[in-house]
Amino acid sequence: MNADSSIKPPPIAKYGDSLAQVSTPALLIELDAFEHNIARMAEMARQHGVALRPHAKAHKSSVIAQKQMAAGAIGICCQKLSEAYPFVAAGISDIYISNEFVGPAKVAMAIELARHIKLSVCVDHIAQIDALGTAASAAGVMITVLVEVDIGQARCGVARMEGLAMLVDGIARHPALHFGGLQAFHGGIQHLATWDLRRTSAAASADKVAAYAQFLAARGIACPVITGSGTGTAEFDAASGVFTEIQPGSYVFMDAHYAANEWSGSAMPRHSLFIAATIMSTAKDDIAVCDVGLKGVAVDSGLPLISPGQSDDLKFDRANDEHGILKIIDHAGAVGRDRLGEQVLLIPGHCDPTANLYNQYVCIRNGCVEDIWNIEARGLSQ
Amino acid sequence: MNADSSIKPPPIAKYGDSLAQVSTPALLIELDAFEHNIARMAEMARQHGVALRPHAKAHKSSVIAQKQMAAGAIGICCQKLSEAYPFVAAGISDIYISNEFVGPAKVAMAIELARHIKLSVCVDHIAQIDALGTAASAAGVMITVLVEVDIGQARCGVARMEGLAMLVDGIARHPALHFGGLQAFHGGIQHLATWDLRRTSAAASADKVAAYAQFLAARGIACPVITGSGTGTAEFDAASGVFTEIQPGSYVFMDAHYAANEWSGSAMPRHSLFIAATIMSTAKDDIAVCDVGLKGVAVDSGLPLISPGQSDDLKFDRANDEHGILKIIDHAGAVGRDRLGEQVLLIPGHCDPTANLYNQYVCIRNGCVEDIWNIEARGLSQ
Repeated sequence: MNADSSIKPPPIAKYGDSLAQVSTPALLIELDAFEHNIARMAEMARQHGVALRPHAKAHKSSVIAQKQMAAGAIGICCQKLSEAYPFVAAGISDIYISNEFVGPAKVAMAIELARHIKLSVCVDHIAQIDALGTAASAAGVMITVLVEVDIGQARCGVARMEGLAMLVDGIARHPALHFGGLQAFHGGIQHLATWDLRRTSAAASADKVAAYAQFLAARGIACPVITGSGTGTAEFDAASGVFTEIQPGSYVFMDAHYAANEWSGSAMPRHSLFIAATIMSTAKDDIAVCDVGLKGVAVDSGLPLISPGQSDDLKFDRANDEHGILKIIDHAGAVGRDRLGEQVLLIPGHCDPTANLYNQYVCIRNGCVEDIWNIEARGLSQ
Repeated sequence: MNADSSIKPPPIAKYGDSLAQVSTPALLIELDAFEHNIARMAEMARQHGVALRPHAKAHKSSVIAQKQMAAGAIGICCQKLSEAYPFVAAGISDIYISNEFVGPAKVAMAIELARHIKLSVCVDHIAQIDALGTAASAAGVMITVLVEVDIGQARCGVARMEGLAMLVDGIARHPALHFGGLQAFHGGIQHLATWDLRRTSAAASADKVAAYAQFLAARGIACPVITGSGTGTAEFDAASGVFTEIQPGSYVFMDAHYAANEWSGSAMPRHSLFIAATIMSTAKDDIAVCDVGLKGVAVDSGLPLISPGQSDDLKFDRANDEHGILKIIDHAGAVGRDRLGEQVLLIPGHCDPTANLYNQYVCIRNGCVEDIWNIEARGLSQ
């Protein structure tokens, strides 16, 4: 036995490996579906004449951001300041932080980012504006500031016209800040089950955004950008005539939560994100136990689904830390079949927090590993 | 603006910082409580004459493993093979993989680990044994193999005496494998609400383990090690006279799920793990929105609690990806108080998958940052 401080786990996959050779748990991207999703959303935004600024919180990977930019995105959204750094390092030069932040450590990050890229940020409180404006002046950087308005989410964002006016005026008092427009996101309507309910709810939210913008217009204040939307309402928001920019994220992957929605036409993204699991215990007759548990898949929006076609007689029943318990639902068909070592593909319930568990995507085409992409912003929640 | 491929987020804390200066979300260890927990469990194991092999899946940090070893642990458990690597690199020389694995990539890892440390592993299927035994012979390494027996969890592990005998015989056929004894864990009884129910359930499970051992003894086969237990039943298992080794993990941290148990005497670990959050939006009257959401705390075993004493009028109500919505439950007391920027300490519902979200622990004593420890095995689930 030799101590060896440089010992490291082997790579989970190598270029050209077959899918069966990938060490599990592994987070897979099915490239054909992924490329379809990237192209279709870009085309949809183009058709409606809105800017596409995909949300990088979904994937946290600079390679994916670069592919989105190559397809026509004007920049990306991040949800946290620290999350933006790997994208800046990879050359993404226009980033919008679509979430409020507070405190000296966060303001310092914003200033540093603004030295390197075209930075825009989001506020809903005068103290956020004053802290940022003072620091930006001192540093000699310009930052574009959008005001978040509440269009039904009841989370962040001002909900009253006077509040909006007060913040826009506050931005105007800081020479280093520039009023960029409105942030308006309603997460609650992204997963409404029927297409028609999403359509009418998105229309109602767009009306609310329009009212904020009209209030400002009546005061002689233009909103260069009205940004928001998500994967579930992008088709409506892009066509609304209100939003100038959409920021969907999950569309690159699709997940079981979004797939449970009713979709219409070609808007539904294809499943491109999967988790490869391996059955590693078959000691019980009615279950198979796989190696993907709570540390391999986020369960906040439901348990993962079994990818159709391969292991249809299994159902993901419950998750412990590193165990996934798969119920054998067609037990008659499985009699006498020992499934130890069988690879099972899972569709995660919620893609964003699942991607945040992994360090790499293993990219698959035609059943082989074509590429491996780092998830550089994983864990960067500050 | 200057492109800079080396730009990186600043550190979330520096030595000597006050807690208020830590950039949130941050995963905190309160060192006094943590050291108490380490010492108390070690002392309990010593008193009962059982070996302590703490489960490193809870913390995934080599510094913590070293502190557990210094307090008297004989080695550590890991739940996955890749998880063991950072501990090997840090000099931990006795690691037990307390979970089944299958496939050539996993067997290759086991062989590599066995070249560096005293490795023991866990099986419940003859195919696992044969693959490992063949590879170990070819590589010229010895591996200790324990057989998992089911004591009520109904997950992995053989449930019949003939199955156990078949596996023990299988191990004996491989000259490079050594039968180490029994793995016996019942996760389901760790969180039984009352102390007495845990005590009687642990006793029933210990009886089951004893029956397996007696069956082997009657065949002339000794079990050098009978290992299992967890934070909820360690006090009973250590005193059972059946287990020779206990493998609790969460005791170093405690979490809200374990704290909901009824405890007795000095067995209850103290809360040492917290998440520092910051209120970053106060645009609504009845809620405060903090910067810790699904990417900053695991919610599989319940939402986080507000740490008592500081923000008692808040209740963690729901989590989105990067937002934690805190309900203001004592609204009358909060009138006129703008809480933007207030730091809130959360107690995670489930420590293991929460620690797996972070890259570092920020260690606090007397309100200041005393140390920062890497979570090197984070994400290593292969």
